[in-house]
Amino acid sequence: MKTKKPTILVTNDDGITAPGIQALIEAMKPLGHVFVVAPDSPQSGMGHAITINKPLRLDKTTYHGEVIGYQCSGTPVDCVKLAIDKIIHGKPDLCVSGINHGSNSSINVIYSGTMSAAMEGGIEGIPSIGFSLLNYSLDADFTPAKKYAQIIAANVLKHGLPEGTLLNVNIPDKKLKQIKGIKVCRQANAKWQEEFDERMDPYKRKYYWLTGKFQNYDKGTDTDEWALDNNYVSVVPVQFDFTAHHAIPILNKWKFNGK
Amino acid sequence: MKTKKPTILVTNDDGITAPGIQALIEAMKPLGHVFVVAPDSPQSGMGHAITINKPLRLDKTTYHGEVIGYQCSGTPVDCVKLAIDKIIHGKPDLCVSGINHGSNSSINVIYSGTMSAAMEGGIEGIPSIGFSLLNYSLDADFTPAKKYAQIIAANVLKHGLPEGTLLNVNIPDKKLKQIKGIKVCRQANAKWQEEFDERMDPYKRKYYWLTGKFQNYDKGTDTDEWALDNNYVSVVPVQFDFTAHHAIPILNKWKFNGK
Repeated sequence: MKTKKPTILVTNDDGITAPGIQALIEAMKPLGHVFVVAPDSPQSGMGHAITINKPLRLDKTTYHGEVIGYQCSGTPVDCVKLAIDKIIHGKPDLCVSGINHGSNSSINVIYSGTMSAAMEGGIEGIPSIGFSLLNYSLDADFTPAKKYAQIIAANVLKHGLPEGTLLNVNIPDKKLKQIKGIKVCRQANAKWQEEFDERMDPYKRKYYWLTGKFQNYDKGTDTDEWALDNNYVSVVPVQFDFTAHHAIPILNKWKFNGK
Repeated sequence: MKTKKPTILVTNDDGITAPGIQALIEAMKPLGHVFVVAPDSPQSGMGHAITINKPLRLDKTTYHGEVIGYQCSGTPVDCVKLAIDKIIHGKPDLCVSGINHGSNSSINVIYSGTMSAAMEGGIEGIPSIGFSLLNYSLDADFTPAKKYAQIIAANVLKHGLPEGTLLNVNIPDKKLKQIKGIKVCRQANAKWQEEFDERMDPYKRKYYWLTGKFQNYDKGTDTDEWALDNNYVSVVPVQFDFTAHHAIPILNKWKFNGK
């Protein structure tokens, strides 16, 4: 039986000074011994990027008071890898990422640096969770998110997670008393309808800004989008075996090899 | 019945001048009307990164002769989004990415810019395929890869792909006569055992290079790693619903809400 305090790695993609990671550190402190290794600059939309063509910097910081903290020049995934190899020298009992400023529900799981850090933890066999609050503002109220992050992390420390899975947790931007509780969900079938804003620079060269409109095509009441729309905290178990197993027999009927 | 030539979008993550994309363009030309929109610089390891904090450039190039080509300052995913919105003004019949210089089998699907471009195509509802050759060298022989890319693309144009899926194709670095054919596989349970090379810069500050050793924990003979080790071209159907559906009933037993 494990009696010593669990080791908890905290990271994010908004950067080590973001209010969201401060909230997550505070939520994790009562649960274990917290290490922070987070990007030194915002890394939103970095997906599962890793840094292979340039060296990484890793510098100790006391930004979060007595908590052992390091800022890293790389991506969220780099932070998890470096934390394991160079800071914790082994695997923490829990890896938490966030609290992201903005939603990572449904298809956003794919673009999210927050979720990629959690996925990297999962690949390493560490129970891992990504947390996101549905509010982009720096002034967002993280009080409800902190409470639910703590409840969910405590459950994961207690139960562990099914092999090959991690959690994608999104918290509605509501007051604590408005939130109805936690719902385990599936990823909604939703996507971004992109449009690029086309502009002209002062030298008459075109440039483009990515913009987009989120569209939920999923009418199910068992999805993360439904849960969030109905004031629940959504918990989606995520896997990193991307195989579409159901498609294998279909493809096996194709006459690939001329037979 | 569709009689006009299919529209094929070609992209990659090694950059528009890489020999791998040249090989893929040549393989696709007999199958349809080819558009190339690819990064203006190598983007390996970019995962599903998108560019949201700076504008993108998109410039016409005749680098690939008569083929309509654009180089983009962004990531592979940006290229697919821009191609749909600004170049093709709609969805191509096929989106192919690669041929990557180096493997994207098993867990590498997660880190790969090549596969992220294909995944973005899949999310858009376009039949999409990522191709990778197991050879990092600029001098690699793409002849067998071209042949198999053409066979597989022709099959996808003919049959379509099951909804919500795309293909991850890896080609062994072998001569054509050594390759035994195509095998439909699942993603092997494998990962990178990372180690960071720690060095000192001329100013006595530490820096780190990511290095790693690939480890395959999977003994199955139905995996992409097995297929490649046995001189088959591996075809893994990949999905972008990351939900670990089997974990939902397990998590529903947790007393999250204090009940």
